[in-house]
Amino acid sequence: MNDEHVDGPVTPVDRYALRARVSAELVTFLDRHEALLASVSTDLAPVVAALRDFLDGGKRMRPAFCYWGWRAAAGDEWGSADQDRAERGGADQDSDEPAVVRAAAALELLQASALIHDDYMDGSDTRRGAPAIHRRFEALHRGGGWEGEPERFGAAAAILLGDITLTWCDELFTRCGLGAARIHAARPVFDLMRSEVMAGQYLDVVAQARGLSVSTPEETLARARTVIRYKSAKYTIERPLQLGAALATGVADGPLAAALSGYGLPLGEAFQLRDDVLGVFGDPATTGKPAGDDLREGKQTVLVALAAQQATEAQGKALRDGLGDPALDEAGVGELRSIITRTGALAEVEERISELTRTALAALEPAPITAESRAVLAELAVAATARKV
Amino acid sequence: MNDEHVDGPVTPVDRYALRARVSAELVTFLDRHEALLASVSTDLAPVVAALRDFLDGGKRMRPAFCYWGWRAAAGDEWGSADQDRAERGGADQDSDEPAVVRAAAALELLQASALIHDDYMDGSDTRRGAPAIHRRFEALHRGGGWEGEPERFGAAAAILLGDITLTWCDELFTRCGLGAARIHAARPVFDLMRSEVMAGQYLDVVAQARGLSVSTPEETLARARTVIRYKSAKYTIERPLQLGAALATGVADGPLAAALSGYGLPLGEAFQLRDDVLGVFGDPATTGKPAGDDLREGKQTVLVALAAQQATEAQGKALRDGLGDPALDEAGVGELRSIITRTGALAEVEERISELTRTALAALEPAPITAESRAVLAELAVAATARKV
Repeated sequence: MNDEHVDGPVTPVDRYALRARVSAELVTFLDRHEALLASVSTDLAPVVAALRDFLDGGKRMRPAFCYWGWRAAAGDEWGSADQDRAERGGADQDSDEPAVVRAAAALELLQASALIHDDYMDGSDTRRGAPAIHRRFEALHRGGGWEGEPERFGAAAAILLGDITLTWCDELFTRCGLGAARIHAARPVFDLMRSEVMAGQYLDVVAQARGLSVSTPEETLARARTVIRYKSAKYTIERPLQLGAALATGVADGPLAAALSGYGLPLGEAFQLRDDVLGVFGDPATTGKPAGDDLREGKQTVLVALAAQQATEAQGKALRDGLGDPALDEAGVGELRSIITRTGALAEVEERISELTRTALAALEPAPITAESRAVLAELAVAATARKV
Repeated sequence: MNDEHVDGPVTPVDRYALRARVSAELVTFLDRHEALLASVSTDLAPVVAALRDFLDGGKRMRPAFCYWGWRAAAGDEWGSADQDRAERGGADQDSDEPAVVRAAAALELLQASALIHDDYMDGSDTRRGAPAIHRRFEALHRGGGWEGEPERFGAAAAILLGDITLTWCDELFTRCGLGAARIHAARPVFDLMRSEVMAGQYLDVVAQARGLSVSTPEETLARARTVIRYKSAKYTIERPLQLGAALATGVADGPLAAALSGYGLPLGEAFQLRDDVLGVFGDPATTGKPAGDDLREGKQTVLVALAAQQATEAQGKALRDGLGDPALDEAGVGELRSIITRTGALAEVEERISELTRTALAALEPAPITAESRAVLAELAVAATARKV
């Protein structure tokens, strides 16, 4: 359920020092809340420390799409190659731009919430190369020699940290500094995005529970495609873009939103398919997760469903047996990888990624957006879907 | 961690048909979201069904305080004894009142989120006399003969349902129908309330982990008091009142907010102390939870901390051994109850409840609020703290 296998040393598109500025906004936000929480109790210090570490990571992908959705609509009044803008004191300019960076940064808090909860639900040990939040708080419990089960404490902490980042997303977004009416106009997209990603996550859990042993490969494939659409394509790309556009125009839908959909939905699907491939074939050094973790977690991806569909009887049995086995060792991972390759599933997914990326890029051509944003969105499409294995 | 032992057949103050109208707003909200989720997948039907059942319960306490915070500030332009207002088509009047009911109803979504997550964290089997959400989804998993552990599926469902109600809270609040500027002005209270309750819940978990075996009774008592303040006094009473007032005045603080604090904080503490007493001594028919559930969960309440402080060595040992033992039987519950009574802890807590309630009532006298709201808040104070065992 952790759609962040591309979290490693990938070079993203980063104009206007956006990544650094998103990080700075998150730090400022945490500083303010650290003061609030410290006034409540010193026992809250580990909460802030954990969130600081967690939020320090991440490729800032959703903020990038939100920001570029805004610029796509807002025009490029600062000149299309003006990468030094932030250094020249852009934040003091009489413009909405710094507030939009703040609104975009809020999406990292939503993503943090989703990942913290996902990692606990999936029983993942690591995230972004460090212990998952629930493991970190298990260790705090053990280190303190506290009462009760460390696992239960870790679980509660992860649930509550995910909850607080979820409300902080809304807080940072709403109080980003744009006028109340503008924020209000963008709310329908913001609200839809959150309901959709949670619905998608629930469907992902259902898909895993109604796995290949109780469903046909066709049912599994259909479920995997719905999950991709809601949990990834809309959440990661389409909605952030539309959210940014709505912040610029004060309108939640219309031709611009539709054009951004034409780019965002296929690209989002391609992005998730790439992530699924990395979840099976990715290098741990790149993904920050143990090799084959998705196989051990039993993720019912399109990749797996296609393999099941085209498998021989013996391959199908090996797939059903190995998938979701937490004790799956390196040889077992190797066997499943081989089945996924030999059935042609890998090639089919790679082909689909290329096709979806082409569709996304083609949708940019006629879109009513600025030349600069068209160029950047094209670069982002390549970065989000490129082979990294 | 479940501060709802007074959820049973208690008669609350309910003017203007507020409870029914809050329930109706929640139903309308769920209807709209059911349509959205149904368009995504039929697999989401159990999510909406579970939330419908869950949100049907509850005393609507936080909405009541929010509403009366608003009326306290907004004046009583409809006449102080006009209980038939809603029937006479009040919702069609050119006023903010229906939107305020909607904003108040949003607090039930926050509370639902907190309870759904709490019940999972505490391992509680029941809530409001029905299976807890995680148990309900465990049963769905078992009934379907799905793959994997039912408990893990139940956990994931509970986490995601708590997440979705958490975002729906701010969706309903923000889009209640009041002007964007008014909502915006009340946001600081809304945001503070959410951060505080989550901080309080984390501290509650820490308090249980750093229980009587590793902490002195004095440390436990100090922790229990902080938890009460943030998890209950502020969240249940002070902040809902101030939120309502801010929706009326467009100002988040000031003399009115301070006056409402003078009533809300002591009353909120008294309310939680009453809840703690019910958690140990309450009748399951009234509380909707098995007798002595708080003792089995190992809740480190003020009641328990006072008992530990005043216990003989033998009593202290029995308390430490029994508290948090999931297998504690009726006799064990009886013994702990007896210790809590014989040490004088129960009497001390009862005395404290009376004292706090008197303080809250006294704060109403000079408060710059309408006569009607003064009378209703006095009634609410009595209802929230009355003995029900």
